[in-house]
Amino acid sequence: MNQLASESELHKLNQALDTGAFQQIRFTLNNTLQSVEVAQLLEKSPPKERKVLWKLIHRDNEGAVLQHLSDEIQADILSRMDNSRVLALADSLDTDDFADILQQLPDTVMHELLKVMDQQNRERVEQVLSFPEDTAGGLMNTDTVTIRPDITVETVLRYIRRHDEIPEMTDSLFVISRRKELYIGILPLTKLLVTDPDITVREIMVTEIEPIPATMTDHEVALLFEQHDLVSAPVVDDDGKLLGRITIDDVVDVIREDADHSLMSMAGLDDDEDTFAPVWKTSKRRAIWLGINLITAFIASAVIGIFQGTIDKVVALAVLMPIVASMGGIAGSQTLTLVIRAQALDQVEKANAAWLIRRELAVGILNGILWAIVVAGVAVAWFGDYTIGLIIAMAIIINLIVGTCSGTILPLILKARGVDPALAGGVLLTTVTDVVGFLAFLGLATYFYG
Amino acid sequence: MNQLASESELHKLNQALDTGAFQQIRFTLNNTLQSVEVAQLLEKSPPKERKVLWKLIHRDNEGAVLQHLSDEIQADILSRMDNSRVLALADSLDTDDFADILQQLPDTVMHELLKVMDQQNRERVEQVLSFPEDTAGGLMNTDTVTIRPDITVETVLRYIRRHDEIPEMTDSLFVISRRKELYIGILPLTKLLVTDPDITVREIMVTEIEPIPATMTDHEVALLFEQHDLVSAPVVDDDGKLLGRITIDDVVDVIREDADHSLMSMAGLDDDEDTFAPVWKTSKRRAIWLGINLITAFIASAVIGIFQGTIDKVVALAVLMPIVASMGGIAGSQTLTLVIRAQALDQVEKANAAWLIRRELAVGILNGILWAIVVAGVAVAWFGDYTIGLIIAMAIIINLIVGTCSGTILPLILKARGVDPALAGGVLLTTVTDVVGFLAFLGLATYFYG
Repeated sequence: MNQLASESELHKLNQALDTGAFQQIRFTLNNTLQSVEVAQLLEKSPPKERKVLWKLIHRDNEGAVLQHLSDEIQADILSRMDNSRVLALADSLDTDDFADILQQLPDTVMHELLKVMDQQNRERVEQVLSFPEDTAGGLMNTDTVTIRPDITVETVLRYIRRHDEIPEMTDSLFVISRRKELYIGILPLTKLLVTDPDITVREIMVTEIEPIPATMTDHEVALLFEQHDLVSAPVVDDDGKLLGRITIDDVVDVIREDADHSLMSMAGLDDDEDTFAPVWKTSKRRAIWLGINLITAFIASAVIGIFQGTIDKVVALAVLMPIVASMGGIAGSQTLTLVIRAQALDQVEKANAAWLIRRELAVGILNGILWAIVVAGVAVAWFGDYTIGLIIAMAIIINLIVGTCSGTILPLILKARGVDPALAGGVLLTTVTDVVGFLAFLGLATYFYG
Repeated sequence: MNQLASESELHKLNQALDTGAFQQIRFTLNNTLQSVEVAQLLEKSPPKERKVLWKLIHRDNEGAVLQHLSDEIQADILSRMDNSRVLALADSLDTDDFADILQQLPDTVMHELLKVMDQQNRERVEQVLSFPEDTAGGLMNTDTVTIRPDITVETVLRYIRRHDEIPEMTDSLFVISRRKELYIGILPLTKLLVTDPDITVREIMVTEIEPIPATMTDHEVALLFEQHDLVSAPVVDDDGKLLGRITIDDVVDVIREDADHSLMSMAGLDDDEDTFAPVWKTSKRRAIWLGINLITAFIASAVIGIFQGTIDKVVALAVLMPIVASMGGIAGSQTLTLVIRAQALDQVEKANAAWLIRRELAVGILNGILWAIVVAGVAVAWFGDYTIGLIIAMAIIINLIVGTCSGTILPLILKARGVDPALAGGVLLTTVTDVVGFLAFLGLATYFYG
């Protein structure tokens, strides 16, 4: 429902910026819109407008807005804020969210800030920071509501009513042991509300849900939440002591980033890429990716270079050769995408990889034969030469098989070696299909025409 | 924590299948594993094993497992089940989940099944089915717990305690008007638990959350849940009458599908593609995508064909021409991916599109100049010909500008015309960068050498 509202909102803001109606903008940003909507507006504003808008946001709202921005934009804004202002953000944010923001700062700045924080806050932030950002420990928050197993439902209800409020996203209370605060089980609020007041927590608590170790990767946490439809889950240390909890709102961000990761990496982009990054920043990043891909292109050219003599004799080869390379590349990248998605969902493992490779081999052969016939037909009709039809047919079959098989095998090898298949897979695959495509087509031609 | 467990689980199951230890498998599937884990195992099994495993699942567990499978696999399994068995699934599933499964059946079969259902069930399923699957109405469930505004917290607590259980994912009760059941507000359980028993619902209910209209798209629903960190939200009809609620577990699936959609469509794959689909099915689908891309390849060849005479004179052109086309394609597809992701997040609109296009123009010029110099240097060194360096430099600048600009403009045009940019964008972009690349390079060469 806010979609349409904020769409015209950007247009209205732009107009107000043009006419210099800053008072009006200030009011909209601080009084009319929710902080998440302000963040959305900032994300879809070009750099100059974004800076002006940020300055018009009231100090008290800065934390709330910042927390909804992507890492890259956070880092950019923080780099222009002075330390006292960054510290003030802690007041309005959850510990885990404030820790996330701190991590966008250079290490030296972060440690300076931690030094001047009051002790209680510092300890809580440091606990979250002691785990890498992409683990359960880095995702968790420490705002758990805990109870003991031997009290009755009535006592629990009385205990809760003493609170002014309980944290958002609290769908269950965590049951911990009296002595060492070890995690024992959870008591869902829905169960608490329907149970007879005399029953004890121990009798109704749920113990099937295994707590999440703080070292689990955020990717695994996300799959767990997805599979078990969790709203919140307890996080424990190696000894089973309750450290905090992870809530679905943070997991949803991980799921979105996880899913975006493959898409963005395959195009050599950051998961978190700022759509409206300035020209210079964008150009630098893209230049690197173009450079890497240029190496692939030069390798392909070098292969063609070997066969200059043959092309000189039969110029039709130059006309048809991109078809062979392109068909192999398309077939390969389809398979590559499928396997990368399957890897992201943890569907591929040793036990089924062999079947996948065999299937892709069969698909490569079938589609190779089909399109070899079509392309050969067109080539013969175009150049009136049966030999060129035969050559291109053989080359296409070879390259489609190579494409589908390496589309499967490459990501498996890369992942086993700890290289991100989404980032490196596409470049390597194109190198293979280009080289094999040109080599097969021009090599066969040299044999037949030589 | 189940990740590692189920990884070896697949291996163990495969071994058991090989040795024919069906009793053991049956026990594992029905007694050891949770239904979501069984679904995961089915998803990562090749077709033959999948069929055998499915037969070993107990009737009572079929619904629970089916509900966790992707649409394509659901449809495949349902097509081999008889009607009475499909009907039996209704007993173990939520209305919305059962309706989702019914939608995988051919329309005629679905209507036959609805006819023989008992009236109450039929009406509930038909209500969900009356909304398209990809709208709030299609996502919602009807298991709301509703209360009136003028009762006290104590009465609410007593009313709830009369239930044996309240539905999972119930984080708030919905407040509706006494007469027409119009939606008024929500009462979060966390608030209910900390409020003085004498206070009335009206005094503490939250009214800021606007209810979701049943016709809102699931994509918008997902953005709303993400932005506002919701666990559940009320769904209303045009008159404001409460129809049901949407819960975060169903939204998480939409977010995952939404994010996967761009990745999969850009490779011509279904969002929901079965990784382990059989050879024949896979080959047919891939053939179509290869055919579409072949048209692009032939168009590029036709362009090269125009310049056969020039290539015949200077064979080095054939060696270098793929570089020009490839650099334009890479630059273009980076931009295309960025814009498609931004569109999926609703970040691009009229008010900022012009800025994006100008930025990409600038990036194209800057990177064009950089890489033109590099490639020209290599070309001159390789072929000892300054003219070819000049030609390729100019062609690369032209093609990089065309690539980045059409990478931005194409998805904007496609979306405005109601065509999915993720599906059609890549093919069109490659056609543009291939044609422009070859045309610019070989055209300039014809001018300089002609």
